[in-house]
Amino acid sequence: MKRVYLFDEGSADMRDLLGGKGANLAEMTNIGLPVPPGFTITTDVCRGYIKRLRLPDGLMQEVREKMQIVEARVGKRFGDPNNPLLVSVRSGAKFSMPGMMDTILNLGLNDATAEGMIALTNNPRFVYDAYRRFIMMFSDVVMDIPKKHFEAQFDALKERLGVKQDTEVPAEALQELMEEFKQLVRDHGKQFPQDPYQQLEMAIEAVFRSWNNERAIVYREREKIPHDLGTACNVQAMVFGNMGDDSGTGVAFTRDPSTGERKIYGEFLPNAQGEDVVAGVRTPLPLDVLHERMPEVYQQFIEIADRLERHYRDMMDLEFTIERGRLWMLQCRVGKRTGRSAVKIAVDMVKEGLIGRDEAALRVSPSHLDQLLHPHLDENALASGDYPLIAQGLGASPGAASGRAVFDSKRAMERGKNEPVILVRPETNPDDVGGMLASKGILTARGGMTSHAAVVARGFGIPCVAGCESLSVDEHHARFTVEVDGKAITVNEGDFISIDGSTGKVYLGAVPTQEPELTDEMNTLLEWSDQFRRLRVRANADNPHDASKALEFGAEGIGLARTEHMFFGEGRLPIVQEMILAKTEKERRDALARLLPVQRQDFFEIFEVMRGLPVTIRLIDPPLHEFLPNREELIREVTRLEVKSPKSEKLEQLRTLLQRVDELHEANPMLGLRGVRLSILYPEIVEMQVTAILEAAAEAQRRGYDPHAEIMIPLVGHVNELKVVRENLEQVAKEVMSRENVRVDYKFGTMIEIPRAALTADEIAQYAQFFSFGTNDLTQTTFGFSRDDAEGKFLAYYVEHKILPENPFVTLDRNGVGKLIRMAFDLGRAVRPDLKVGICGEHGGDPASIEFCHEVGLDYVSCSPFRVPIARLSAAQAVLRQRVKIAVDK
Amino acid sequence: MKRVYLFDEGSADMRDLLGGKGANLAEMTNIGLPVPPGFTITTDVCRGYIKRLRLPDGLMQEVREKMQIVEARVGKRFGDPNNPLLVSVRSGAKFSMPGMMDTILNLGLNDATAEGMIALTNNPRFVYDAYRRFIMMFSDVVMDIPKKHFEAQFDALKERLGVKQDTEVPAEALQELMEEFKQLVRDHGKQFPQDPYQQLEMAIEAVFRSWNNERAIVYREREKIPHDLGTACNVQAMVFGNMGDDSGTGVAFTRDPSTGERKIYGEFLPNAQGEDVVAGVRTPLPLDVLHERMPEVYQQFIEIADRLERHYRDMMDLEFTIERGRLWMLQCRVGKRTGRSAVKIAVDMVKEGLIGRDEAALRVSPSHLDQLLHPHLDENALASGDYPLIAQGLGASPGAASGRAVFDSKRAMERGKNEPVILVRPETNPDDVGGMLASKGILTARGGMTSHAAVVARGFGIPCVAGCESLSVDEHHARFTVEVDGKAITVNEGDFISIDGSTGKVYLGAVPTQEPELTDEMNTLLEWSDQFRRLRVRANADNPHDASKALEFGAEGIGLARTEHMFFGEGRLPIVQEMILAKTEKERRDALARLLPVQRQDFFEIFEVMRGLPVTIRLIDPPLHEFLPNREELIREVTRLEVKSPKSEKLEQLRTLLQRVDELHEANPMLGLRGVRLSILYPEIVEMQVTAILEAAAEAQRRGYDPHAEIMIPLVGHVNELKVVRENLEQVAKEVMSRENVRVDYKFGTMIEIPRAALTADEIAQYAQFFSFGTNDLTQTTFGFSRDDAEGKFLAYYVEHKILPENPFVTLDRNGVGKLIRMAFDLGRAVRPDLKVGICGEHGGDPASIEFCHEVGLDYVSCSPFRVPIARLSAAQAVLRQRVKIAVDK
Repeated sequence: MKRVYLFDEGSADMRDLLGGKGANLAEMTNIGLPVPPGFTITTDVCRGYIKRLRLPDGLMQEVREKMQIVEARVGKRFGDPNNPLLVSVRSGAKFSMPGMMDTILNLGLNDATAEGMIALTNNPRFVYDAYRRFIMMFSDVVMDIPKKHFEAQFDALKERLGVKQDTEVPAEALQELMEEFKQLVRDHGKQFPQDPYQQLEMAIEAVFRSWNNERAIVYREREKIPHDLGTACNVQAMVFGNMGDDSGTGVAFTRDPSTGERKIYGEFLPNAQGEDVVAGVRTPLPLDVLHERMPEVYQQFIEIADRLERHYRDMMDLEFTIERGRLWMLQCRVGKRTGRSAVKIAVDMVKEGLIGRDEAALRVSPSHLDQLLHPHLDENALASGDYPLIAQGLGASPGAASGRAVFDSKRAMERGKNEPVILVRPETNPDDVGGMLASKGILTARGGMTSHAAVVARGFGIPCVAGCESLSVDEHHARFTVEVDGKAITVNEGDFISIDGSTGKVYLGAVPTQEPELTDEMNTLLEWSDQFRRLRVRANADNPHDASKALEFGAEGIGLARTEHMFFGEGRLPIVQEMILAKTEKERRDALARLLPVQRQDFFEIFEVMRGLPVTIRLIDPPLHEFLPNREELIREVTRLEVKSPKSEKLEQLRTLLQRVDELHEANPMLGLRGVRLSILYPEIVEMQVTAILEAAAEAQRRGYDPHAEIMIPLVGHVNELKVVRENLEQVAKEVMSRENVRVDYKFGTMIEIPRAALTADEIAQYAQFFSFGTNDLTQTTFGFSRDDAEGKFLAYYVEHKILPENPFVTLDRNGVGKLIRMAFDLGRAVRPDLKVGICGEHGGDPASIEFCHEVGLDYVSCSPFRVPIARLSAAQAVLRQRVKIAVDK
Repeated sequence: MKRVYLFDEGSADMRDLLGGKGANLAEMTNIGLPVPPGFTITTDVCRGYIKRLRLPDGLMQEVREKMQIVEARVGKRFGDPNNPLLVSVRSGAKFSMPGMMDTILNLGLNDATAEGMIALTNNPRFVYDAYRRFIMMFSDVVMDIPKKHFEAQFDALKERLGVKQDTEVPAEALQELMEEFKQLVRDHGKQFPQDPYQQLEMAIEAVFRSWNNERAIVYREREKIPHDLGTACNVQAMVFGNMGDDSGTGVAFTRDPSTGERKIYGEFLPNAQGEDVVAGVRTPLPLDVLHERMPEVYQQFIEIADRLERHYRDMMDLEFTIERGRLWMLQCRVGKRTGRSAVKIAVDMVKEGLIGRDEAALRVSPSHLDQLLHPHLDENALASGDYPLIAQGLGASPGAASGRAVFDSKRAMERGKNEPVILVRPETNPDDVGGMLASKGILTARGGMTSHAAVVARGFGIPCVAGCESLSVDEHHARFTVEVDGKAITVNEGDFISIDGSTGKVYLGAVPTQEPELTDEMNTLLEWSDQFRRLRVRANADNPHDASKALEFGAEGIGLARTEHMFFGEGRLPIVQEMILAKTEKERRDALARLLPVQRQDFFEIFEVMRGLPVTIRLIDPPLHEFLPNREELIREVTRLEVKSPKSEKLEQLRTLLQRVDELHEANPMLGLRGVRLSILYPEIVEMQVTAILEAAAEAQRRGYDPHAEIMIPLVGHVNELKVVRENLEQVAKEVMSRENVRVDYKFGTMIEIPRAALTADEIAQYAQFFSFGTNDLTQTTFGFSRDDAEGKFLAYYVEHKILPENPFVTLDRNGVGKLIRMAFDLGRAVRPDLKVGICGEHGGDPASIEFCHEVGLDYVSCSPFRVPIARLSAAQAVLRQRVKIAVDK
């Protein structure tokens, strides 16, 4: 096996063996670009080194042979005092791990070659400075003597000399410093090696070792880079950007990495080495400066950049050095970019004929789109300093909002009608849901990522900052105080604040927000994606506003409209509570009769927006106690009154209420009386809902809106549950149609969200015209995890300690939940070949899960409106990646 | 198709077509017994009738032809005034439905034949009485004129005559009554038919119609008899037991149906018809009376009974009538019997050579055994009247107990050490568990079959009467009062009471109880069963006492020892609470160190009892908050103190406690931090437990008890959970063995009780040496049912309304949960062919579920000790029934 590759022996597709840097240096060399000669020691050698902790026999012999070729090409010799070759030794793994592993520059310098260099360059200051840097770097990286000792001596020297800048230190002083540095090494019981090949061997080992240094491991964990890849080691002739004003160094992107604009975008530092740029000691200049100062070099660089972009067919990130007017390319790789830039570049490159539409769709990652799909606070406004940052909590529900602080849910519902409000609470409970819905944003002082506020806010897509513990919320006086830089700031009710639910930041004042919108480029990209994807994309939307947003983002229907969210609306909750507290069926029906017109209007408005597209409406799902006042609060209040006014009428009322709440109380509400179980015990609720749906559809039909209602019965576990409820509701539907004298297109189907439903999907499909996988609950029951409890109590630990590969509520668990989905799909389709099958859990907006849905063969995914574009793109990528896989398999 | 069978054309194996009664009449006829001639119209005709509501064409012609043959055999003619044949028309389905359908006697009587009968019998009173009964019965059953009208007229007649007994009414008066009866029929717009064949046709239709009368449907629902079987209709020549002192009627069992003693057991009523026996107007005499009065008839009957028993090879239930000294057999069928009798008869019949051991094992039903396996109150003692019945609640946990009433759990724990106590509470909560465990029985005034008291009591096998609402429990004064017959009775702490957890009855005083024991016959039967079964039977037992009981009942190991039950023991709960409330790992480990010797002793004692047999020990499973005080009580107490003494130290303490309880509080504890999840977050608890197990096993080993520990890690859903915990605990085990210098036989395995575990059992089997299906939790998660909530809130409704065929917590759901079990079994065995697989949910003691476990191929079932005999028998029956099935399939 070949272990050392000259750059002209490799190519861009050898990244596994040569690492990204090595492969690209090879590629650039081969297409004739000016690259300082060098060679790459393979990742294979690194993997062996990590096992045995020594370099393989004969490796250094191979290195010497390659070095001789490099010497010949450069016309210098490694270790030759008369014309010394200096080299850099750099790591370079398959995947970029910037700054995580070690690099050594100027290797080959020793007392003799330094003298030779001085004779050649006639620039002792330059040479001693290079030597100083080399000893420092080598000692630190290779010999494990912390850099700070050297820095301390250098600082002491500068102080003695009364200078500040490194460049002000004269050559002689540097020469003396060399001796001090070498002594420092000896003081640590070591000896700075004068033999260049010994230096080289030690440096190669150090680079390989650095694969397993702590920060590299942590980085790989975070970026999900496998630990067994190893790094390659690149040895390359040094070129110097710090040899005067005709020298310099720079980095550039072939297009703007933040906007995607087709214009070279870079920085240049005259008379400097790359490490000066990294160290941030001097401020780089725009690339235009190079244009002015060295127009020919600039022109050459522009041409190279253009050529590389066309060669790689992608936006490139380049590093170069100019040594005495001569341009050298030191690095090229595909450039990282923002979401905005990714979209523009992909679309532009298609227009330029560089890539195809399929490639464009694969070039933009779902997380790129995600960046663009939340409302965000206006960056310029924030930069103005007019809006002080006053607190930092948890970014519990993404997006941003500004509004008047309101400290009570009822008042939030009132004020929220006319102006934007931010609900501020110590923490929230179900009583607050109405107020939360009426608010633009939610801010709580207590509770984590799975607190009531966080969960509900994410469910409703409302920005939320939770657990902002520096706030002291004073509910009674409707205000909070917070200490900022030792100064107490008080925010009273009605004062404007702004929150960023992605970062958890809280600002004083009304920071302007920017709504996410699909740009022309995004639309173009998504339209191309639509040509590839097989999966349809629908949205989860409970009201006309969300439905409109979903349509705007390209949804092809509503996959989940939760009817119970409508119960929290203004003026509705009291009726709902009346219905629940009813003592007789008659009373319950009376309350329901008052809800009927309200629900009918809700549905009508959705049909109006979604003309011609299917709308899946889920009948009531949550346990009834969710609509009642908080039980613990009631217990406290009753206990208080028992002590204070044991004979009050209020106590009697509350006791009666508490009794009903107690009756409805459940040990495990998640597994209790909800979903279809409610519809079996209290059929009148869903009878009202189906009446409302059909009456709304009838009216929509008359107005020509072409409604398509898909009525979904949740939480079915046994076919008989569906059978009994559907038969009853079919009757209700027929009665409405006959009364309204209109035929309406409707279907009955069920959610598959209980393992037993998946296991017996063949039986259930006999009574279901469609299935929708409710993967939130299906994940809860398949794992036996209560999401509310698990995420706060042990799931984070599980993911952190790799007990679970991912949070299964975010990315669908293929082995477990996925197995049930496949089973249900196959069983259902076997019985009913035209069974429509979709997914409406949160996984419907997760790219990896969407890929799985595509593989299984589902008809559609449904997700929050703002994730619709992500789903459209992911669905296309699933097809395109499958094509690649199939091609590879062939 | 033949639609009408003479008795000599049928046989005992034609029950499907002729019904049970018809088939057995045919069988008796064919073996030459004296059976009044007759014929049977098939169930097929009934099924057709039910569809079309009319008899098929030509049926009555066939009936006439058969009737002519009957006429010839009897020597009388149907409708002939000179020598009339009277018949009975009776229903008779495949499965006995006593009293549910209709019967008409004396059919064929009309004005003319009645006169003829009088001439023949010279007994006008007898004839008019028969005619009276016939008109009443026919009108009621066939013409839908309620009997009460006729009874009213008959009563009026008796009053006019000043007599009380029917038999005192003279013939003339009866004759007049006939006319009144016929008028009554006309008053209802109908006409009593004089034509015997018209009577017969109407009666046949009425019998068929009665298959679908309401009480028959309800009965079939309850007994799980299919609704589509239909009934046959038997038409048989009447014989009369009421023709004088040389006549009579009787019923008999060939052996004692309650004890099984081999001795004819029956009753006889001289000069009476069968309906008189049923009506209960006269008290029947023992069969010995027949022996005295008609020794020859008696002897003939004894011979017939003996012959039938040998013919049918089973204990038979017989009906006979003697008409003027001549014996007629009217019915024979396999006799119903008590559990005790069933066991004795089966064992005796094997000894008598009548049946084989396999047949014997199939003859005793699991419910027969169940009757014998609970402690029960001494019947004789109750009959003495010394122990008044004072209340009736729900029979919430079977078995019986006597003891001193104690009204507080702590006191129950103290007093329970020295004497039997019954814990009496308004209702129970987790704080009471210690007291419950220390009590012989539990009595609550509130709560249903799924209240805390009921669930815990069943779990612990402690008799419990719950929801005994007539009790007024006064906790402060430690007493309850109850009104009995308008008189208030007060039971103070320390007074003796007795409860029957099967019937829900509460008695005053210490009623002696009888412990269930295996009789010799039961042992014999179970030993035979053991020869047939393949499934092993283990018991769920948490302490040496239960383990001994299990051994005595034939358990072959312990399938589930729940370690946490040991945490509730005396002096332990405070340490457990200390452990839970610990602020640091150190504090937690200190508390655990004090629990270690206690747990070690627990395990040692179990190993001592179970020498040589495997003991499966489940590591801690429930959420920690189960060991802490009740949260609501705490909230109330804190609220009270906040009002009353806001600065008290007590308040501070309780607040701190409440805070920790709040931290541990979960929305859905069933799906929260418990089982293996606890062991991952707090490994020190299970480290202590495994140390205790291994140290106990080491000591047991040294003493020669040959311990086999199977350590079970509960609630695994992902293989990594098992992997991480097992690896840690293997280490602990090895350390103990090395310290103790003993090798101990132990295995690590897991419960399969989460759907995901079943779905990924192949992965899990790589780290598990055994599986045990925890079907309680697996049923909860597969259905998405919280048992606590479901049973109280909707499961009863579901079962009642046939939405679920059975309560899946009682009988394993084959289609859903069963599918997961099969999948897990197959996946697990594929990876690890020697994987030991059992079941330890409550289903392990349910016969239908045991049959399923046998079919799947499990190694063993585990159940409560007192169900071990039932499991042994059921496991044998599963094998024997499968053999029959296989034979049939061949």
